[in-house]
Amino acid sequence: MKCVLVICDGLGDRPIEDLGGKTPLEAANKPNLDYLASVGINGMMHPIGPGITPGSDTSHLSIFGYDPYTYYTGRGPFEALGMGLPLGYEDIAFRGNFATVEEKDGDLIVLDRRAGRRFDEGDELARSLDGIELDSHADVEVRIEHSVEHRCAVILKGPHLSHKVTDTDPHTPRQPLRPCQPISEDEAARRTAEIVNLLTSKSNAVLSAHEASSRRKEMGLPVANAILLRGAGVRPRLPSLKERYGLRAACMAGAALYAGVAASVGMDLLNVEGATGTVEVDTLAVGMTAVEALTDYDFVFVHIKGADSAGHDGDWEMKMRMVKKIDGMIGVFRDNLDLESTLLVVSADHSTPCEVGEHTGDPVPIVIAGPGVRTDDIEEFGERQCARGGLSVIRGLDLMPMLMNLSGRTEKFGS
Amino acid sequence: MKCVLVICDGLGDRPIEDLGGKTPLEAANKPNLDYLASVGINGMMHPIGPGITPGSDTSHLSIFGYDPYTYYTGRGPFEALGMGLPLGYEDIAFRGNFATVEEKDGDLIVLDRRAGRRFDEGDELARSLDGIELDSHADVEVRIEHSVEHRCAVILKGPHLSHKVTDTDPHTPRQPLRPCQPISEDEAARRTAEIVNLLTSKSNAVLSAHEASSRRKEMGLPVANAILLRGAGVRPRLPSLKERYGLRAACMAGAALYAGVAASVGMDLLNVEGATGTVEVDTLAVGMTAVEALTDYDFVFVHIKGADSAGHDGDWEMKMRMVKKIDGMIGVFRDNLDLESTLLVVSADHSTPCEVGEHTGDPVPIVIAGPGVRTDDIEEFGERQCARGGLSVIRGLDLMPMLMNLSGRTEKFGS
Repeated sequence: MKCVLVICDGLGDRPIEDLGGKTPLEAANKPNLDYLASVGINGMMHPIGPGITPGSDTSHLSIFGYDPYTYYTGRGPFEALGMGLPLGYEDIAFRGNFATVEEKDGDLIVLDRRAGRRFDEGDELARSLDGIELDSHADVEVRIEHSVEHRCAVILKGPHLSHKVTDTDPHTPRQPLRPCQPISEDEAARRTAEIVNLLTSKSNAVLSAHEASSRRKEMGLPVANAILLRGAGVRPRLPSLKERYGLRAACMAGAALYAGVAASVGMDLLNVEGATGTVEVDTLAVGMTAVEALTDYDFVFVHIKGADSAGHDGDWEMKMRMVKKIDGMIGVFRDNLDLESTLLVVSADHSTPCEVGEHTGDPVPIVIAGPGVRTDDIEEFGERQCARGGLSVIRGLDLMPMLMNLSGRTEKFGS
Repeated sequence: MKCVLVICDGLGDRPIEDLGGKTPLEAANKPNLDYLASVGINGMMHPIGPGITPGSDTSHLSIFGYDPYTYYTGRGPFEALGMGLPLGYEDIAFRGNFATVEEKDGDLIVLDRRAGRRFDEGDELARSLDGIELDSHADVEVRIEHSVEHRCAVILKGPHLSHKVTDTDPHTPRQPLRPCQPISEDEAARRTAEIVNLLTSKSNAVLSAHEASSRRKEMGLPVANAILLRGAGVRPRLPSLKERYGLRAACMAGAALYAGVAASVGMDLLNVEGATGTVEVDTLAVGMTAVEALTDYDFVFVHIKGADSAGHDGDWEMKMRMVKKIDGMIGVFRDNLDLESTLLVVSADHSTPCEVGEHTGDPVPIVIAGPGVRTDDIEEFGERQCARGGLSVIRGLDLMPMLMNLSGRTEKFGS
């Protein structure tokens, strides 16, 4: 049996007075999602656990069936994997920002964490740092690759390294770039922090002297003269979905992080025209590509980002528009998938309530439609409607076993 | 955001034929609790876990977010802390009863576990034993403090002590006072049992010779000539609610045990006129004090005892009267709390069904009202109504993370 899992990032919300006490999902016009609710089984899902506010990385790990408390070390490796970079299990991966700093009393003060809104020099700057030599730590290789806008991935390869080091990114502007520090007592963490600090100062020198810096100066743009690192982690050794369930699985996501988590559990990454990772996403194109992917794959994971961004912006009208776009994609599935032989699952990785503007630990609605499902009497897909559904409340970690059970892919425990 | 957590001891019940198959809570007139249900989200809570019969101590630990399977050793330390006694993390604390014993064939037979219903000599008897010397164990200091009626707290302070010893209280009358025995193989447990047995015989001698004993004999009252010990434990090292969530928390409870658990998680103990810990409690006064406490505190825990006593007595009419009194307190909150900026939570620590007369493992109803809550369509606060609510079923350990999520006090796990 085939399965399509749609995760709408940050979809869950809280009641909004201007919507008559409804959530954006409840208030939106969404005939296809409501149809799915009416032919499926509905419920609420705590992506990680009750009251736990999920990150996007930990939440997806959990929803794919991998306990983040066991496997998660940091976001860096997922970003790197999502960019398609080769990443060994011993490598230390960071997320990086090209940033603007100014030296003051021996500190590097971060003037702009993103080196300006307009930033086109990512590729050439990353190339200028990739493979940079670290003198006394010649056994460590540095890989730096530009991703999008001001962002890059930084990977340290070599012996005796550790992810247990702090961020150099101060996370708020006008603060000093933070010296990297070990957060465990072992020698590897101490050495890694030293390497990161060396990388900071060497890259500061290379970037300051780079021709792109002069160019940006002439154009009156902030110079990208430093990299800020955060989210150090190692690639977790995860048994793949193929090993666990025999699944040929594919991912369609508009941003590296989600693709990276998917890659770490063995999903193939499919590129989709129109999967922008923004509210501009062409959900109909994404839907059609997902349908087509079912020819080659048993399991297709579709990640749609926009609702989260709307929640972070506190823009419930935008969130409702995203719901409508998602509903359009469900319409594509409704027209092109056979729900008598395909499981279609729609949920979210966490709530991003518009009135909070951040991820919260509120549970998210979920619907599972397809063959063998014990339907309930829920007829609308919404936070409060699903709370009365036949699934009751599940955890993210429960989802894959439940889907694999419906797919006939689980093995009996005991005899 | 502020939060008031009301725990109604032993509130949960089972259907009662004389009430037309309703529970006392369901049958009682409780307009304010019903109002709360109608504006909140409702559900059922297993204080510890499904089918697990909670003690009052383990249940409160769990509801405050501390796994009792990890942290609980015995009731003694919570009683001592609730009495305001200084208690080190190495001290061994017991609950004590002044009791009437008679020597027979070398055994001390317990004639009355409470030394009679009328008992006014607790203070002077405790003083006569406090600091008693234990000869061969001169490195151990004994602290004995009277609490209420026939009850006292007994604390052993010194090196190489263990809480892994049995009760000397036989728990049923006309049985011999039990010699204390180690329940683990280590030397500390063996030595502690020896010390307890020495304390038993020395206190028997002191109390028998006490002037109060002659006085009670003359008055025809049972003599208090022994102390019975139970509930040996050590104070658990719990991270405080302040450390965990930045909460300034206060407790209003009418009995030492609940105050003690609250103190062990770092709550300040507030004294309230009228918080008697009995069915005579002035719930309106307690309610007003809780409202006032919100000026200085983020989190106020209110413990109301009476419903449990009614359950133990099998008195469902009394339990319904307690529900009415609790409802009056909710009325005070309704009039004086702003539910647009305050979370109000009502639940119980366990069920004490009138037809059982003891704690049971049945789940308890819970309602959470306040800002950000995804309301449901429940309009009555009762065991069976709440079971259909939007919260579904939670565990005691889930409650604090869920409240802290609604309060915006949780940190994201992952990024």
